[in-house]
Amino acid sequence: MRVYLDNNATTKIDPMVTVKMQPFLGEFYGNPNSLHQYGMEVRPHLNEALGYMYDALNVPDEDDILVTSCATESNNTVIKGVYFKHILKNPEKNHIVTTSVEHPCILETLHFLSDNGLVDVTYVDVDENGGIKAEDIKNAVTDKTVLITMMWANNETGMIFPVEEVSEFAKEKGILFHTDAVQAIGKVPVDLTKVDVDYLTFSAHKFHGPKGIGGLYVKKGKNLPNLLHGGEQMGGKRAGTLNVASIVGMGLAMKQAAGHIEKMNTEVRRLRDKLEDALSTIPDTIIVGPREQRTPNTLLISLKGIEGEAMLWDLNKKGIAASTGSACASESLEANPVMTAIGEDPELAHTAMRLSLSRFTTEDEIDYVIDAFIKAAERLRSISSTYAYTNEVG
Amino acid sequence: MRVYLDNNATTKIDPMVTVKMQPFLGEFYGNPNSLHQYGMEVRPHLNEALGYMYDALNVPDEDDILVTSCATESNNTVIKGVYFKHILKNPEKNHIVTTSVEHPCILETLHFLSDNGLVDVTYVDVDENGGIKAEDIKNAVTDKTVLITMMWANNETGMIFPVEEVSEFAKEKGILFHTDAVQAIGKVPVDLTKVDVDYLTFSAHKFHGPKGIGGLYVKKGKNLPNLLHGGEQMGGKRAGTLNVASIVGMGLAMKQAAGHIEKMNTEVRRLRDKLEDALSTIPDTIIVGPREQRTPNTLLISLKGIEGEAMLWDLNKKGIAASTGSACASESLEANPVMTAIGEDPELAHTAMRLSLSRFTTEDEIDYVIDAFIKAAERLRSISSTYAYTNEVG
Ligand SMILES: Cc1ncc(COP(=O)(O)O)c(C=O)c1O
Ligand SMILES: Cc1ncc(COP(=O)(O)O)c(C=O)c1O
Repeated sequence: MRVYLDNNATTKIDPMVTVKMQPFLGEFYGNPNSLHQYGMEVRPHLNEALGYMYDALNVPDEDDILVTSCATESNNTVIKGVYFKHILKNPEKNHIVTTSVEHPCILETLHFLSDNGLVDVTYVDVDENGGIKAEDIKNAVTDKTVLITMMWANNETGMIFPVEEVSEFAKEKGILFHTDAVQAIGKVPVDLTKVDVDYLTFSAHKFHGPKGIGGLYVKKGKNLPNLLHGGEQMGGKRAGTLNVASIVGMGLAMKQAAGHIEKMNTEVRRLRDKLEDALSTIPDTIIVGPREQRTPNTLLISLKGIEGEAMLWDLNKKGIAASTGSACASESLEANPVMTAIGEDPELAHTAMRLSLSRFTTEDEIDYVIDAFIKAAERLRSISSTYAYTNEVG
Repeated sequence: MRVYLDNNATTKIDPMVTVKMQPFLGEFYGNPNSLHQYGMEVRPHLNEALGYMYDALNVPDEDDILVTSCATESNNTVIKGVYFKHILKNPEKNHIVTTSVEHPCILETLHFLSDNGLVDVTYVDVDENGGIKAEDIKNAVTDKTVLITMMWANNETGMIFPVEEVSEFAKEKGILFHTDAVQAIGKVPVDLTKVDVDYLTFSAHKFHGPKGIGGLYVKKGKNLPNLLHGGEQMGGKRAGTLNVASIVGMGLAMKQAAGHIEKMNTEVRRLRDKLEDALSTIPDTIIVGPREQRTPNTLLISLKGIEGEAMLWDLNKKGIAASTGSACASESLEANPVMTAIGEDPELAHTAMRLSLSRFTTEDEIDYVIDAFIKAAERLRSISSTYAYTNEVG
């Protein structure tokens, strides 16, 4: 049996999405900006796809949804755009507030700018549950703050951050508010008539769309300079020949994702909770964050004395795919950044395992994983010198 | 009959490429950075694809080929990267030399930086043939010049620019040299053991690969800061989850393109020349640039008294796709920028038609186009007030 529980890293493309993309990898190859039939015949499909995205976020036509190549591009567009539009012109207001557990594409972009002395950043820490307190964000703001960027849900723990409260606060203060909603779309309702953001990032491959395509929502009047300057695509706001197949794919994937929120919060949540309950019976485990404050598909567990990588390998041999954390950094076997941020000791930070389900996950798969996981934990603990040692002294 | 002669705007995906991409839009959906089997099983395919790209450009492993989302991204990466790495630190050397006929993704990026007072740019004009004289580039260089960016071949005319001479000159002077080779790959040999560039841009959809994927060659030791900061993909030099399907597609497309250079310069060139000879018999036409100095697939023709858009529509009705110029700007019905640059009067600049062939173009198609084009020219001239007028006074 093969079981994929690494859906926060990437997801399987919905087979309907793959089918929908095919014509645009074949005969419908025109450049939609061309004035001839090859160009014109693809445009209605693009419009349909964009319509799905506007519907999914519940935003009016006057706002922009820029199609980008990934969430990384979207996040870079916001941060570098704010730098060029606001900070370069008015270096007095060069302060950005974020959290210490954002994805590397936020953190590294901020590091780059601050290493060059161009911005000043405050990184708000998570609490002991891996959550962010709105109060802590508010306290970090100064009269120099130009942007708050805070993710909607965390990729490691699934913890949902207080976007509503922070966005209202930002609005009152006249501070720009951006949220990286990559891990929220398709998992929790993301309705922008309810949460008032200036910028919002998403990435298709996190909700059963293709890789290499993402989006950036930009509220009317909050335009930023392009990250990609060039031709007049996307109203001149994101240049580059349109990736028609992937845009069409992302549109359908987003419609599907919005349509499955209910299922995610009932069936998938039930499976996740079942898995969580079962794994909690293993002694000396920590599961980060109260489950009702998390996205319904995510579970981050630490097993004292078991290296995350060792567990990963044991599971992998049984056909189960999981993760020790963000796939972006997983080649380097680093300590889980959220575990580190919540103040766990380095040893425990190395024992984190992330299990993330999708709407394609089945009950049989979860039963299989429960069995395999518990056995792997027993086996690895029986050979773990640190675990034996901890138990002797503890 | 449908005939596609707009291959400089975008090309049909080679059916072999589409087939090759399929598994990665289906079961092979793992994130290649993941440590489990879903991740690991896609890696050899990525390596194969990258290998094809290194072979096509004939560059050693120690150099970088960064996969980007398009040529626009690659070009923005170079120019903004040079700004952040060199000019920000040393504003004394803030001068960039380019040509006035680069693609908008070069020109708009430069405009953005110079409008913000961050760089100083010299735009070298084309000569009466639409060519660039190496001498003119050399004369534009000052002791403040940090970068020369000059395309390998022009998208409108197909004119090949003196990259070899300019790159040698840049090297002597210690100036960085970038070339946008988007219109060269697959049309003329691009062998980087023969032409010594620091950076080179390409885009898959111009050589029968998928849209939304491109590349940037970076010579060893010439690294620039990321345009997309984030995860550790591409050795940390271009972040964002890898678009496996498109990378695999681009790799094969590039191998195929390199393998078809010979055909492009014999059969496709012969068809282009046949078309050119036939259209030259229409009175009062101008074809820009000596054909042996152009890429073998391209032809830019002006027909006195015939609006490019009118011709486009007539051809379109007959199933023929052509262009009045760059697809990036074609929605705006602007005067052809190269025609303007070579000093043609505005009226003539509005009469430009670009016909661009591919290795899939057939002799039957060309015969059909010759007939349709000549008839359309006759018809449109017979109703053209400007043409009648010109002939009376001329
Ligand atoms: C010379 C040149 N450079 C860059 C581009 C931009 O390519 P893309 O739209 O794939 O970014 C094009 C295509 O329009 C081009 O012809
Ligand atoms: C919260 C979050 N933001 C951004 C990203 C980056 O997405 P992409 O790799 O598609 O750019 C990810 C995925 O790794 C993520 O989980």
